Amino acid sequence: MRPSGRANDQLREVRIQRGFTKHAEGSVLIEFGDTRVICTASVEAGVPPFLRGKGQGWITAEYGMLPRATGSRNQREAAKGKQQGRTVEISRLIGRSLRAAVDLNALGENTITIDCDVIQADGGTRTASITGASVALADAIKWLKANGKVKGEPLKQMIAAVSVGIYKGEPVLDLDYAEDSSAETDMNVIMTDTGGYVEVQGTAEGETFQREQLNAMLALAEKGIAELCDMQKAALSA
Amino acid sequence: MRPSGRANDQLREVRIQRGFTKHAEGSVLIEFGDTRVICTASVEAGVPPFLRGKGQGWITAEYGMLPRATGSRNQREAAKGKQQGRTVEISRLIGRSLRAAVDLNALGENTITIDCDVIQADGGTRTASITGASVALADAIKWLKANGKVKGEPLKQMIAAVSVGIYKGEPVLDLDYAEDSSAETDMNVIMTDTGGYVEVQGTAEGETFQREQLNAMLALAEKGIAELCDMQKAALSA
Amino acid sequence: MRPSGRANDQLREVRIQRGFTKHAEGSVLIEFGDTRVICTASVEAGVPPFLRGKGQGWITAEYGMLPRATGSRNQREAAKGKQQGRTVEISRLIGRSLRAAVDLNALGENTITIDCDVIQADGGTRTASITGASVALADAIKWLKANGKVKGEPLKQMIAAVSVGIYKGEPVLDLDYAEDSSAETDMNVIMTDTGGYVEVQGTAEGETFQREQLNAMLALAEKGIAELCDMQKAALSA
Amino acid sequence: MRPSGRANDQLREVRIQRGFTKHAEGSVLIEFGDTRVICTASVEAGVPPFLRGKGQGWITAEYGMLPRATGSRNQREAAKGKQQGRTVEISRLIGRSLRAAVDLNALGENTITIDCDVIQADGGTRTASITGASVALADAIKWLKANGKVKGEPLKQMIAAVSVGIYKGEPVLDLDYAEDSSAETDMNVIMTDTGGYVEVQGTAEGETFQREQLNAMLALAEKGIAELCDMQKAALSA
Amino acid sequence: MRPSGRANDQLREVRIQRGFTKHAEGSVLIEFGDTRVICTASVEAGVPPFLRGKGQGWITAEYGMLPRATGSRNQREAAKGKQQGRTVEISRLIGRSLRAAVDLNALGENTITIDCDVIQADGGTRTASITGASVALADAIKWLKANGKVKGEPLKQMIAAVSVGIYKGEPVLDLDYAEDSSAETDMNVIMTDTGGYVEVQGTAEGETFQREQLNAMLALAEKGIAELCDMQKAALSA
Amino acid sequence: MRPSGRANDQLREVRIQRGFTKHAEGSVLIEFGDTRVICTASVEAGVPPFLRGKGQGWITAEYGMLPRATGSRNQREAAKGKQQGRTVEISRLIGRSLRAAVDLNALGENTITIDCDVIQADGGTRTASITGASVALADAIKWLKANGKVKGEPLKQMIAAVSVGIYKGEPVLDLDYAEDSSAETDMNVIMTDTGGYVEVQGTAEGETFQREQLNAMLALAEKGIAELCDMQKAALSA
Repeated sequence: MRPSGRANDQLREVRIQRGFTKHAEGSVLIEFGDTRVICTASVEAGVPPFLRGKGQGWITAEYGMLPRATGSRNQREAAKGKQQGRTVEISRLIGRSLRAAVDLNALGENTITIDCDVIQADGGTRTASITGASVALADAIKWLKANGKVKGEPLKQMIAAVSVGIYKGEPVLDLDYAEDSSAETDMNVIMTDTGGYVEVQGTAEGETFQREQLNAMLALAEKGIAELCDMQKAALSA
Repeated sequence: MRPSGRANDQLREVRIQRGFTKHAEGSVLIEFGDTRVICTASVEAGVPPFLRGKGQGWITAEYGMLPRATGSRNQREAAKGKQQGRTVEISRLIGRSLRAAVDLNALGENTITIDCDVIQADGGTRTASITGASVALADAIKWLKANGKVKGEPLKQMIAAVSVGIYKGEPVLDLDYAEDSSAETDMNVIMTDTGGYVEVQGTAEGETFQREQLNAMLALAEKGIAELCDMQKAALSA
Repeated sequence: MRPSGRANDQLREVRIQRGFTKHAEGSVLIEFGDTRVICTASVEAGVPPFLRGKGQGWITAEYGMLPRATGSRNQREAAKGKQQGRTVEISRLIGRSLRAAVDLNALGENTITIDCDVIQADGGTRTASITGASVALADAIKWLKANGKVKGEPLKQMIAAVSVGIYKGEPVLDLDYAEDSSAETDMNVIMTDTGGYVEVQGTAEGETFQREQLNAMLALAEKGIAELCDMQKAALSA
Repeated sequence: MRPSGRANDQLREVRIQRGFTKHAEGSVLIEFGDTRVICTASVEAGVPPFLRGKGQGWITAEYGMLPRATGSRNQREAAKGKQQGRTVEISRLIGRSLRAAVDLNALGENTITIDCDVIQADGGTRTASITGASVALADAIKWLKANGKVKGEPLKQMIAAVSVGIYKGEPVLDLDYAEDSSAETDMNVIMTDTGGYVEVQGTAEGETFQREQLNAMLALAEKGIAELCDMQKAALSA
Repeated sequence: MRPSGRANDQLREVRIQRGFTKHAEGSVLIEFGDTRVICTASVEAGVPPFLRGKGQGWITAEYGMLPRATGSRNQREAAKGKQQGRTVEISRLIGRSLRAAVDLNALGENTITIDCDVIQADGGTRTASITGASVALADAIKWLKANGKVKGEPLKQMIAAVSVGIYKGEPVLDLDYAEDSSAETDMNVIMTDTGGYVEVQGTAEGETFQREQLNAMLALAEKGIAELCDMQKAALSA
Repeated sequence: MRPSGRANDQLREVRIQRGFTKHAEGSVLIEFGDTRVICTASVEAGVPPFLRGKGQGWITAEYGMLPRATGSRNQREAAKGKQQGRTVEISRLIGRSLRAAVDLNALGENTITIDCDVIQADGGTRTASITGASVALADAIKWLKANGKVKGEPLKQMIAAVSVGIYKGEPVLDLDYAEDSSAETDMNVIMTDTGGYVEVQGTAEGETFQREQLNAMLALAEKGIAELCDMQKAALSA
């Protein structure tokens, strides 16, 4: 029995609100249950130095958490002058994943910066971030097309992400904090809306996991991601 | 004529939403028109080293802006490893102002940290931050009292803040970004609900200002702060 | 009765020594009683990136204190790798104030950097800094004109600054450390030699202050600044 | 055909040299072909603050690369004052993996710090690091036991790591730099000597990957890790 | 012929002013010609962690230069967030030299921090710093004795420093900036008032130097240091 | 009697291995007894900004130590975000010394960066670094000539370095850690293969040293450096 009473293969309630702030080319508030993340996509003309003159674009991402997004307050990274290792790791994961969604040549010499800022955390902040950022990215690319800044279609596919894990010996989908903090294994799976794998990251927290458990978790992830992709589509056509 | 069509002595529409996030002892979303700030108050037992053993508490504050809270994206301070001077200055102002609201001896050896994070900026982020933070602080102090962690009443008074300025030669109340970016003088006034001054900061942006202009701005501020204090009270009794 | 025996509207003894060091285009040692600050103005051709190609100049300022300028030694900011918030705030105030003294278009694409380094502190370091820096700035502008690097007159007016406060219930002018550390209210006022306000910053340290106290402090400041401007003129014509 | 002429399921030549430097409790030079990493394990009495008084130990890791370990020189991270995101990410991975090898309660209040310093890089530095560090860790634990600093057996199992990927459409084992830099998918697998999974990290670099490709890569990894564990055992019994 | 017209074995005019600032236990303004350095010695009870409980004291030093102490302005190290290598090197040299002057056991668990801040530079800032700091240190030790904080005599001897070099093929004493910037060899010599060597640092800037040149420079240094020690004694007995 | 049983004028066993790593233009592992340092020389086209357009080249150096190169582990400087003063000082010494070996005009607009990384420390790491780096530099210059990137001969001479000191009252050559940590005086001498002095740095650790002791140390250094230069030549002709 899961703490939330959900079935093992059941996602939390997911809400996707587009146009959350007014300045960004793409701005989404995504909620996976009590986890709430503001995902914005900002367009800038030009690319970083290592790409100049190649005629292609760039997607990069930064992740952050408000200091009191969690049960006890974390020190503000800007005040400390240093990002935590965890922050750096998640920022890199988000950027890498979203680049898989985009044809960088079709993007031209434009940079889209994704900011994922967690305003309330209850487990799964990185998977909510990626799922919401994919929608914000789609909006930013629409803006580029509507403003005549790109020709063709840079968006190859939608990307969604979900966590799966082994909790009290059972494979479960979309862990909340209560589960995540005591799960034996935690895996993040990122896939496209056509079923291709973008990234798989599974970690044994205590006991190691076995191949059949890995298979069971992958099956749950596939189901969850299909549902998330449907919600992304619904949000984008609303 | 102001860009927004408001009268010279008219505030923007102000909304104060308590309990905005679930973890913090006080959490408020405040909106001054399109300026939106999440203000949280986090309680921790203990005080910083310079106060240990004196039996009194401490209030401190940190201010931040999401990178795309503004029209063009700002570099993330946590990624850059350094806060801007403006950020440091505003953090100090918020902390200093809110300490004026509290009897630090009655607070006992507890620290309340105020975080003001701007999610959308349209002028007046520091005055919205202080006005919202005062409500979050009141909720955190309620929590301390309800949980038996303080005796007596640490909250001496409510604090509110508003900007005033000289825009196209006229004194105006509560400047939005369109006004703020071209005002000749910009002043932030912070007062208590009983009409005492906590802080006055006025700066000539181009031409200097005269004593009678200062007087006119102070009168506008007094009117605006009285209205803001009424809204704070309404929110706290809701 | 003030600790120094001064009348409430009496400045400390002020000394202004031009040409204090030999390399800078403007170099002033200013003393407000025991507060001693070296103010230098350094001219460089060119402007920061955000101003390039606009045909105008720039004034910027940095403030520092020798580690043992005060009663107990402060950690050296260069060794710590970080400036205190107070340092950043004062640097910004000095730069902003002095820009009000200058016609940046007449300055052409030149940058003048003001350095205010406190070698001995006894209250009022920021007001002494601004008052001395205004003289160093005037000398640097003379140098620019004498060397044919600007045409016309970039210096619009002289700027001076003084602190006022409420000490033991009385409004007083030019607080020294003994007064400053126990004043109820502390205000810094920066004005031009023609009586325009450049900046007003008043802070209630403990009790809030009332409008009539604000008026009384402003009157004292006006008197003190007129005297300081006379001393600046005397120094510049010596 | 692989650039090195190896079969798809063939490891590079692996060499493990124990006692490489004289000061550390465990010191190993490991080579995966031309990739060479110095792995040291340093024992210190005591644990970090968050573990004090719990009676358990801690394993942590840091990864680095000499500036010219690669084809062109990288800036020295110590001189730049900041570690790259990649460095932080790999350090965390190594630490997390090795904690899975150890019974932290049996370790008592001791900390073992693993340093993995790459002196020559040719792909697979993180998997070589983990495989070598596991041997250095075993030596450090022997030292703790031989010196009476722990009772019981803190070492639960050996850990080894290998990379697998899809190169020119084929699943291959233990990618060198020539393969790694153009592989479609790159996966790092970390397992115990008894076949349990510790961590799986697979990333699509360009095209996404399919479930059957994931299965094929996992099979290769399992074979490679079994061989690496045999080499670790041979080295430890030498 | 030297640019200044001095004889090869002639020091610049040296001035030593004690009690230059009022807060420090020792405060000296030293001038070697146009090189002017404020040297302060600050006493604090207690020692750094690595010395606690050993019953001995500590001497440490920090060196800095005001940004416009030189012909063109240097970036402020505190603003940049990093000290230059040259600054770090000189700070270490000053601290090491002055520790040679003191019996750290007789000092008890007290720390004396030396700050040498160059307000005007014209060559020889490190030798002026050491020579002036030695006087400030003597005053701080007098203060400790006068206030009953140490028994016995911690000051073993006075230390002085001077530069020597090969300028246009000739050995010269006490190089000013004009000489220093084109000297073939530059050597700093630090000795006690009884003729013992504390530190010798000679560097060939272009051509290497020969043993006989080294001997000639050491002879000049010995003469110069004897004169400096006489001036220190005169200053201390004034 | 020296701890190692060596005669007072006897070097430790020195080994110089060229081509230690495969990527660098010059790569040397040098051993002075148990002190082992990897010295690499990396060639890059171009020069730092302050030299651009002058037609000359640049030599710079960085020094580092693996965290467990020493008896107890030092914090990793890259993780701490700051190099120690000692590291900065040694880096500067190595760069300065090696520039004396090279005709920077003949080098053209090329930069050679020397990295000296200590993998095991037993005293004399800076002298081993310089002696090994000189060989790596020679190899890098050979590479530049062989690849037609320079004409003429940039290498003017070989440089070697050795430590000498006063240990238990006796002058000794090439101190190991056991001697270094208790020597009364420690001096590093850097000379060319033709007997010119590049740098002399002698420091009294406790008692000051006398002129005749300085002479005796210089004589030992001269002998040791002649032997080291012979070994460099043998290595380069192997």
